[in-house]
Amino acid sequence: MADLSADAGVPVPTIKYYLREGLLPPGRPLSRNQAEYGPEHVRRLRLVRALADYGGLGIATIRELIRHMEDPGVARGELLGAAQQTVTAHHDARPGEHVLQAGDLVAGLLARKGWDDLAGHPAGRIMVGVVASLLELGLDDVIEALDDYAAAAEAAAEVDLRVLGDATDRERAVEIVVVGTLLGDTLMAAMRRLAQAHTSEKTYEATG
Amino acid sequence: MADLSADAGVPVPTIKYYLREGLLPPGRPLSRNQAEYGPEHVRRLRLVRALADYGGLGIATIRELIRHMEDPGVARGELLGAAQQTVTAHHDARPGEHVLQAGDLVAGLLARKGWDDLAGHPAGRIMVGVVASLLELGLDDVIEALDDYAAAAEAAAEVDLRVLGDATDRERAVEIVVVGTLLGDTLMAAMRRLAQAHTSEKTYEATG
Repeated sequence: MADLSADAGVPVPTIKYYLREGLLPPGRPLSRNQAEYGPEHVRRLRLVRALADYGGLGIATIRELIRHMEDPGVARGELLGAAQQTVTAHHDARPGEHVLQAGDLVAGLLARKGWDDLAGHPAGRIMVGVVASLLELGLDDVIEALDDYAAAAEAAAEVDLRVLGDATDRERAVEIVVVGTLLGDTLMAAMRRLAQAHTSEKTYEATG
Repeated sequence: MADLSADAGVPVPTIKYYLREGLLPPGRPLSRNQAEYGPEHVRRLRLVRALADYGGLGIATIRELIRHMEDPGVARGELLGAAQQTVTAHHDARPGEHVLQAGDLVAGLLARKGWDDLAGHPAGRIMVGVVASLLELGLDDVIEALDDYAAAAEAAAEVDLRVLGDATDRERAVEIVVVGTLLGDTLMAAMRRLAQAHTSEKTYEATG
């Protein structure tokens, strides 16, 4: 276990905790106090750390995800859908006068994009909350540009799926979906600000 | 003040606090205990609430932003740049073996996009942190797709600037930059997940 700890860069007490919680399969027993751990244990430890540290996922969520991953009866599409939902905040729009109108606007967008199959997806409920806030603040210009933002989001999702397409094993695919999506959100937000700042500077230079 | 409170939907004690903190200009005095407030006070209150509630900005940041907004010597480009930076997290990459390599990768991307003028922008430092994490996790496929993600981010930024272009007054423009950017991040993340889920379902239906 000391070797495993060194290889994976995870402290021994944490490894023991993961073993107890069922996040890491037990090693092959060598004696009463020793067990052998292989490269699959190092990989699993790195996955659990990535999900916890970068994904901010709790132990129960990670255990559920690993159970899905190890169950050959769970199809790849279903597994990745479950992985994706763990990194989607689950909250409903605050009730308010704008929620109904926001719901209609979002339903309209989903229909235009052909995404109506996803009416129950938590990300759709997040959109309703955001659009209700935009309505409340009178930021109608942003709402009118919703389809254009959707096209940009779709371009990012296409890259996501291309990147994911190369991952043949299930453990790797789950890691890419969870960690890639979360780090990817931060990356997109940062690059959006750079692109804004750059284009904005050019504009003001041009107009004086 | 009771009327102002009703019109803006902000409680009287909050209005008094904003007045003391210099976020709201005083009303025109009518008597020792009464002052007249106009529509500009209602707007200002709505802006401060939006920056605090949706932008999560602290009082000191809001005051600084309002000072910029009211100073005609601050050019529009500079004002909006300052507004944008308030909604960009300021943190440096954790020191680690991958930070130097990540810095080179980000500098390369900025050069390819023609964004080198922004080398010191906080969003660039955030990118270095994300890329260092991707390197640490061996998610090289994501890094290889960096330019494609940048193109998607650029598409979103173009919509941002088009939406902003319609806002002629400074108060409105600051509101759009701060609130639109933050709500916009959430919106993009939600739509990216919907697009992922939709394309992914189509793929699995097609291949069985």
